[in-house]
This record gives sequence, structure tokens and C-alpha cells, in this order.
Amino acid sequence: MNTSTDPSLPLEETISIVGVGLIGGSIAAAVKRRAGVRTVIGVGRRPEKLEPARERGLVDEVTGDLTAAARRSSLMIFCTPVDRIVEGVRTAAEACRPGTVLTDAGSVKQAICEGLQGGLPEGVEFVGGHPLAGSEKQGFEFADPDLFCGRVCVVTPTEQTSPKAAERVARFWRGLGARVLEMTPADHDRALAETSHFPHLAAAALASTLSEQNRHLAATGFRDTTRIAAGDPDLWTAILLQNADAVLASLKRFTDGIRDFDEALRQRDATRLRALLDEARRQREAL
Amino acid sequence: MNTSTDPSLPLEETISIVGVGLIGGSIAAAVKRRAGVRTVIGVGRRPEKLEPARERGLVDEVTGDLTAAARRSSLMIFCTPVDRIVEGVRTAAEACRPGTVLTDAGSVKQAICEGLQGGLPEGVEFVGGHPLAGSEKQGFEFADPDLFCGRVCVVTPTEQTSPKAAERVARFWRGLGARVLEMTPADHDRALAETSHFPHLAAAALASTLSEQNRHLAATGFRDTTRIAAGDPDLWTAILLQNADAVLASLKRFTDGIRDFDEALRQRDATRLRALLDEARRQREAL
Repeated sequence: MNTSTDPSLPLEETISIVGVGLIGGSIAAAVKRRAGVRTVIGVGRRPEKLEPARERGLVDEVTGDLTAAARRSSLMIFCTPVDRIVEGVRTAAEACRPGTVLTDAGSVKQAICEGLQGGLPEGVEFVGGHPLAGSEKQGFEFADPDLFCGRVCVVTPTEQTSPKAAERVARFWRGLGARVLEMTPADHDRALAETSHFPHLAAAALASTLSEQNRHLAATGFRDTTRIAAGDPDLWTAILLQNADAVLASLKRFTDGIRDFDEALRQRDATRLRALLDEARRQREAL
Repeated sequence: MNTSTDPSLPLEETISIVGVGLIGGSIAAAVKRRAGVRTVIGVGRRPEKLEPARERGLVDEVTGDLTAAARRSSLMIFCTPVDRIVEGVRTAAEACRPGTVLTDAGSVKQAICEGLQGGLPEGVEFVGGHPLAGSEKQGFEFADPDLFCGRVCVVTPTEQTSPKAAERVARFWRGLGARVLEMTPADHDRALAETSHFPHLAAAALASTLSEQNRHLAATGFRDTTRIAAGDPDLWTAILLQNADAVLASLKRFTDGIRDFDEALRQRDATRLRALLDEARRQREAL
């Protein structure tokens, strides 16, 4: 599986991963496969919790001192919850050397990229990123160096981003095996509302309809359909709020679709019901 | 995996499986593991299509003649679409010897069990059944002798069912590794509306919201959440129509839940949103 990393790509010397959970830990694991990154620093608010990641060799050092890590890094990747990224990047950027690029792995991009327009030190840039890889699992214990292989990573430069910084982030992700797509932050958020954020909400609403006495009758279909509802409520509250308008638009389209099913069922309209199910299957199979 | 079948259980001599798809084929495969069933007959409307199942050893014989198969069977299992079960059972029962038990694997029970109340020949009984195992896959090519191991199979005797016939069907499923639960047909249908039939509809409605230009941004979360929407539209049209009232009741509860999310999002109410997501996670993790 190592073949998808390209050893001819230029390398970063020291990188910091801020927030070493499933995504941060997997980035660390993937980076560690690639010869040439000299040092990977894991940054966390409670560095003692990251000690096992260091012992396991995912990261070389752990620290709770974001500023100290920033001083030594040429690339910093923020994998914290989306509502902590802007503040973290601003703090770190103040300590970075010119030429340092900061990026993130947050599921929402517009609020973050807008929050980081302007005001960074000369020569220090932020470029938004979002690898479409995740899981309801949490923690670096589940870190997987192949998590990004073949997956899409969206990179969202703005008009202020230098092509050089955008390319460095894109190259980083390609080096981890991801397929990089460039989108505007707004386009990213509209698309992800549809493919990820609203589906999370729908799965959560569905999970909540299950009454206790029927749990033992929930088979694989129910389990699959609600799997993502096991995701962390704090993380998802922040994501949904940062993309509320687009999620509400997806919710509207979905409830319109549910209403079509409702009418067809009330009218016992087999032809219409079959047409609705046919369309759903066609969409699902096109994936 | 063979350990969950109990070799001490009494055996059937000749059984017919009517409708050899994923479920029928898996029943055949599981039965074949169990020494002592003399003959398994696969019955289909186009028996030539079942030849590969015979060649593969899933069934011993294939036929398109339901009546001929009925004459020779001590147990018949109908695995056809739910809207063809009543008619098939009535036709077969006319040719069965006294003492023969007919059962099914349909996902809906009340319409079928009511449709088969009375009118069967003396000594021939129907007992409803529903193994909670399935897949969006179709066809005996995916037959799996372990499909029922550890899964629930609901058996739905009515007041007219003899305990002996109900026990024979229960014993058959236990022999295939399933955990048998006895329920009334109405209770089964209400529960399954919640755990399976409405979730199918919700997954279908969600799959249909995905616009073509965003398909490449649908990751594992979307895929899992909509997986069951790939199920056969004809089968599911019949299931949803046969259980329409209970599905509509589940739909109502679900849309009430969606409305809660909608309000919380519109009001940017983080506390309420987190509470809704917390409740969903709690429900999902209780599975």
C-alpha cells in the first residue's frame, strides 16, 4: 500500500500535528512511512495523553506548547474540532517563521477560511483542507497510515492564497495517497452539507426513533444506516452550526423527498412508490 | 461456525425452498450442512435459472412445478416476494400430505398470516416466519450457510396455529443457528416498520438527495447510510405497501425528530443540538 506515496515529492523537514486523534494520528502514521520528514511533533492540550502515541512511534515528540512547536515547523496541520481551528492557527502563526504553511483537516471550510483571511504574519499562510476520510471511531489508537489512500482531500485556497502555498498543501496530501480536489470554501461546504453533514443529522434522527423494546430486532440494515450517529456530539454540533444554512437547505430537500414517499404510501400508489425506490437505487448504485 | 446447529434436533426428510434467491439459497446452504435432510428441492418459476444452484450443490433438484414439489415435501419454505406468498402457499397446500408444514421468510407478516387464515386442507398448516438477515445483494450466488447464525428469526403463530406446527418451524430455524422469537404478526409488523421498513424508506429518500456533481464527494458515511437503498424496488414496494400504516407511523415520528433538529439549527441552539446528537449516539451505542 506504500506505492501510492511518491518518494520524488519534495519533503517537509519538521511538521506539527495539532490534535492527535484519529485523523491527526493517521496523518502522523502516513507521514512516518515516508522517508525524509525529519520530525513529527504532536501537539495537544494534554500532552501526557499523547505519550502512548510517541511510544508507539506515531510522533517523535509531544508537547502542549503550540508556540514552541510553531517555531520549529515548516508545516502545521490542525486536526482539532472545527470550532478551535481559527484560534489555534492565529496563535501558532504568530510564532512561525516566514515560509511556514498552516493547514487543517476540518469538515467545514468557509467559517475557518473567512476567519483566517488577513492578519497572519508576513510570509505565513493558511490553506484550508479536508480529507474525506473518517470514522465514528475516535483517538489515535485507531490511527491508520492507509486512511487517506485513494480518498479525496479537498483543498480550499482563496483569492488571498499564494499558488505556492496551495500547491504545498496539495502535494502533502498527494504524498499521503489522497486525490486532491481544489474547491472554494463555499462550494466545499454546500457539497459536504449534502454528502456528509445532513446525512449525519438524518442518521441521528433515525437512531433516535428506535424504541428500547425493539432494539433486539434491529438488524444490519438499521445498524449501517445509523452507524455515523455514533460520532462525537461535540464535534458534530460544531460542524452543523458552522454550516447551518447549507445543512438546512439539504434538510429541506430531504423532507420534500420524504413527503413524496408519505403521499405515495398514503395513497397506496405502487407505481409511484416503485418509481421513488427505483430512483433511489439508481442514485445509490451510481456511487 | 457449524457448532450452532444442533444435530440432536429432529430432521426433515424432504424440504422445498420456493424462491431460491439470497435467503432461499442461504437456507439451502445451511440445511445442506446438517446431515439428515434427505432432499432439498428448489422451486422457481424459471427452473433453468436454478440449474447453477443444483450444480453447486445448494439444492438436490430444481423444478418449476410447485404442486409436484409440494406432494413430496414435509416442510416448505416460501422465500418469494411478500406479495406472492399467500397465493403460492394456497396452491402448494392443496397438494401437500397431511402433516406438512408450510412457512415463509417474508419481511411482513400480518397480511400474509391473515391471508392464510383458514381454508388450508385438513392437517396442513402455515406458520409465518421472518429471519432478520438479508442484504442488498440478491441471488443464490451470494448464498451463505452462516447467514442465520446468531440472527433473530421471528416466528408468528396465530390462534389457529397448532403448537406442534409452530414448534417445528422454530426448531427448523434453531437448527440453522438462529435465535427464535415468537411474536404476533401485528407486533412483528409494528416493530419491523421501526427497525427495517421505515429505515429503508429514509435511506432511499437520502440517496435521492445526492446531486450528480457531488457524487465524488460522498465518502463512507454516505455510503453506509444509504447502503440499503440499493435493495430491489419491487420487493420493497410490496413490503412497504403491506405494512403501510405502521411505516407511516414511523415516518411521522421520524419527521418530528427531524423538525427538532431543524429548529435547533435555525436557532443556532448549540445546547439543544448537542442534546439531540447525544440522545442519538446513546441510542446507537445501545445496539
